[in-house]
Amino acid sequence: MKEEIHSGWKHRLHEIIYEADTPLGKFFDIALVFLIILSVILVMLESVKEVDQNYHDLLLTLEWVVTIFFSAEYIARIVSLKKPLRYVFSFYGIIDFVSTIPLYLSYLFAGSQVLLAVRAFRLLRIFRILKLVKFLGEASQLKSALKASRAKIAVFIYVVLILSVIMGTIMYLIESDEAGFTSIPRSIYWTIVTLTTVGYGDIAPQTDLGQFIATIIMVLGYGIIAVPTGIVTVEFSRHGKNNKKERSIVHTNTQACPSCSAEGHRDNAKHCYSCGDLL
Amino acid sequence: MKEEIHSGWKHRLHEIIYEADTPLGKFFDIALVFLIILSVILVMLESVKEVDQNYHDLLLTLEWVVTIFFSAEYIARIVSLKKPLRYVFSFYGIIDFVSTIPLYLSYLFAGSQVLLAVRAFRLLRIFRILKLVKFLGEASQLKSALKASRAKIAVFIYVVLILSVIMGTIMYLIESDEAGFTSIPRSIYWTIVTLTTVGYGDIAPQTDLGQFIATIIMVLGYGIIAVPTGIVTVEFSRHGKNNKKERSIVHTNTQACPSCSAEGHRDNAKHCYSCGDLL
Amino acid sequence: MKEEIHSGWKHRLHEIIYEADTPLGKFFDIALVFLIILSVILVMLESVKEVDQNYHDLLLTLEWVVTIFFSAEYIARIVSLKKPLRYVFSFYGIIDFVSTIPLYLSYLFAGSQVLLAVRAFRLLRIFRILKLVKFLGEASQLKSALKASRAKIAVFIYVVLILSVIMGTIMYLIESDEAGFTSIPRSIYWTIVTLTTVGYGDIAPQTDLGQFIATIIMVLGYGIIAVPTGIVTVEFSRHGKNNKKERSIVHTNTQACPSCSAEGHRDNAKHCYSCGDLL
Amino acid sequence: MKEEIHSGWKHRLHEIIYEADTPLGKFFDIALVFLIILSVILVMLESVKEVDQNYHDLLLTLEWVVTIFFSAEYIARIVSLKKPLRYVFSFYGIIDFVSTIPLYLSYLFAGSQVLLAVRAFRLLRIFRILKLVKFLGEASQLKSALKASRAKIAVFIYVVLILSVIMGTIMYLIESDEAGFTSIPRSIYWTIVTLTTVGYGDIAPQTDLGQFIATIIMVLGYGIIAVPTGIVTVEFSRHGKNNKKERSIVHTNTQACPSCSAEGHRDNAKHCYSCGDLL
Repeated sequence: MKEEIHSGWKHRLHEIIYEADTPLGKFFDIALVFLIILSVILVMLESVKEVDQNYHDLLLTLEWVVTIFFSAEYIARIVSLKKPLRYVFSFYGIIDFVSTIPLYLSYLFAGSQVLLAVRAFRLLRIFRILKLVKFLGEASQLKSALKASRAKIAVFIYVVLILSVIMGTIMYLIESDEAGFTSIPRSIYWTIVTLTTVGYGDIAPQTDLGQFIATIIMVLGYGIIAVPTGIVTVEFSRHGKNNKKERSIVHTNTQACPSCSAEGHRDNAKHCYSCGDLL
Repeated sequence: MKEEIHSGWKHRLHEIIYEADTPLGKFFDIALVFLIILSVILVMLESVKEVDQNYHDLLLTLEWVVTIFFSAEYIARIVSLKKPLRYVFSFYGIIDFVSTIPLYLSYLFAGSQVLLAVRAFRLLRIFRILKLVKFLGEASQLKSALKASRAKIAVFIYVVLILSVIMGTIMYLIESDEAGFTSIPRSIYWTIVTLTTVGYGDIAPQTDLGQFIATIIMVLGYGIIAVPTGIVTVEFSRHGKNNKKERSIVHTNTQACPSCSAEGHRDNAKHCYSCGDLL
Repeated sequence: MKEEIHSGWKHRLHEIIYEADTPLGKFFDIALVFLIILSVILVMLESVKEVDQNYHDLLLTLEWVVTIFFSAEYIARIVSLKKPLRYVFSFYGIIDFVSTIPLYLSYLFAGSQVLLAVRAFRLLRIFRILKLVKFLGEASQLKSALKASRAKIAVFIYVVLILSVIMGTIMYLIESDEAGFTSIPRSIYWTIVTLTTVGYGDIAPQTDLGQFIATIIMVLGYGIIAVPTGIVTVEFSRHGKNNKKERSIVHTNTQACPSCSAEGHRDNAKHCYSCGDLL
Repeated sequence: MKEEIHSGWKHRLHEIIYEADTPLGKFFDIALVFLIILSVILVMLESVKEVDQNYHDLLLTLEWVVTIFFSAEYIARIVSLKKPLRYVFSFYGIIDFVSTIPLYLSYLFAGSQVLLAVRAFRLLRIFRILKLVKFLGEASQLKSALKASRAKIAVFIYVVLILSVIMGTIMYLIESDEAGFTSIPRSIYWTIVTLTTVGYGDIAPQTDLGQFIATIIMVLGYGIIAVPTGIVTVEFSRHGKNNKKERSIVHTNTQACPSCSAEGHRDNAKHCYSCGDLL
């Protein structure tokens, strides 16, 4: 039987990595959270020149510790799953892989540190590791509300972009190079900086007409912000009402499927809702 | 009969340009979307000095390709319609015309590139070309909500402008020329930059009193933004409710009227809802 | 009888100034709107050095025209009312007076141009002059919604100010004079610039700790803006519902009370709702 | 009996400090409000170099006046309460203590002025002193709405922070040191400055790719602001409905419990709702 075959060390490994019911499983989770945060801080510190000069060896050692742990974790994850390919090509699987390899690659290619930027994505895993069920509920509520307002927001962003292209072209024709409007793409950059009310000030209109049109763009941007806010608010208020009913019905637990590592199973579930295997 | 007369090459041309049911019609639409985007990118690249110096001939050639296609398209549109004047003086008709002529005019007048800014408006056509019915539904919902809150937003902008004039005049009296407040119009420009929370920093108050009043303007601007957001949110929530009912009733197709090119006809429509001609 | 005494030239004058039913009344209103806008533009142009140097005499002449008209209007308003003191000490009465006198005072005192800033307030009159009943309805709706959320917004602003004082003091202790944090009031100014997301950049933190705390202030400010928006939106949605019922009942006309110049009387009103005199 | 023992001078002291029913109680409250504001203004003025140089002695004298009054008030508060430890370790107790000691400590340690920043927190007390019951009602409504949306806002801030780390790392890899992107932490600082639409401009992207990604961050930040606004608005509208019912039932008075100084007792309450002692 399937169940039996899996009940060896693979099963125990799966329990440690994917669940938090045993002491070892809990310890693994806390160690992983700690190492993910450490790995992100390491990347940050390496980029600060003074720190890197003074503590280069320490940072490299810690980077090796993180890399070895991540490598072991990645292999363990693959080994303990029945269908590892699903994990390998999943969103988290790719992030886990890319977070692990930069140090190995640095001996082969220069510039492989670019991959370190991906490591920040592992912070998303902390959500799942800590089994922050309550927060996940809130997150999925936000997500579904944003999904519902997707089409409206796409229209909105499209209109904002066209507006930026038009206004950027006009400003390029009005303003001179000295003011920073050296090309249409740069003028469009300035228009978006202004329309979103960011306003760096590295480029700023200097002619009277330019300042007048800038004023119109600002007031537009100031008013336009009402549109996504209105869209999202209405969706939130709609979803808030629906979710109230749903949330009282579904009770999920912290188990993960041993085949595909799907989460959020019902308390009384026997089969994975995603791949159908026994839990 | 009307129908018969039109059933020659004009009818086929109309089908290609205005509808997307035939393979040729689809190809035409895709080519048009591609060329509109290309034409906008061309205008942008020409404005970047380094690109223009190195690839001037290539850009000019592509500009000619776009211009010739746009010219042919414009003529075809006029020819294939029964009442072409409606199109010529419509919003899209004027934009199509102005997007086509700059290259021709550049041999007559200097500075006719100003008209290129209009080309960005053609991007709006992509909406219609792609027959993004779903998005158009969302867009019209946004539009009707914004229309309903027009009067309130007009009052709001009027009050903001008066506030800017008053505050700008006060700041001009307080701050010196060195801080950038060289005239009342410039002070009003600064006030709007501050009130909309853009904040370039090219002009910034330097006296204590000026900074104090600037603080008041910022807090005002920070609070005032709540007003349009509130207005639009309330309208959205009202329109969202109404539209739910309406949307389930009307089913439109992608046909366009051969006489006036109106769109969004009901599936079982036989006459154009706008001009009454047979579809 | 009161009515009779008033039915001479005073009554006709009142009709011209305060109502828009007669041709002369309409002409007076349009002239006033034109002159108010002219007077504000004059103040602006005088502040632009180049314009003032080249057209000083023209501007002064126009300023005299405006001043004489405003003087005549002010006297006519007082004469045509039965209880002129109410008008003289009303909000509009004071603004009308202060808008009229700067040119006279300029021969007595230097620096009386300060009063010109008040002239911008006359722009508010345009609302009333144009009898923009529809807009006034919207404005009063906005006003009553803002009034209802007054207490909440006061709490909010008070909390924001305390937060600014605390954060400003902390930033003063962390950042040095070179970064622009020369005193606590200036640090508070910077905090408000940051909290409201204006961000001039004339003062910016330069130490690591200062930038970290600045980050917290920004995220706070970014989140805090949700509070007034939420308050106002809820009030708007509440008032929108109430006003729907009310608006269908009350019908007002454009008459103004000859005694106290109150406006917005019901169509069938015989007595002023404010002072009780016959209309 | 408890009641009797307390009915001596301690009881009168309690009445003066914690209640506003007697003339002396009112006078004490007004004096305290005045001195708290004075104490905050003193801290500010001491930080302005010119003011401190010219009026050092006056400021020091006033600082001593404030310190002595605060000391006396602190001792009186402790003495007049039956259970003083509750007060000493409460939020307000700690703030009162820390606001009092800086001048004493300045003779022992340098740099104890850091504690003066805490004094601004005493401004919160003005709310309670002035027994602004109406405002407190609004404040608690805001507070409970914010509390209810706490989990959603935590998710939101967490996502914003991860986004900032990812985008900051990417920008560090793209932009050079000259543009100000000297390390990843500084790039993250810039990302948050941009994402919150503050936009100082002390650090600004200069490469084309950097400006393109900056544009994406801005549009993201511009849209993201809709999320907390939506969350808070929905909570406000929910709490506004609930509070309407509640507010009509509970009537509180301005009395404070002599044991634990809890406030907001019902009009007909005989025992403190917090500690159970007789009022």
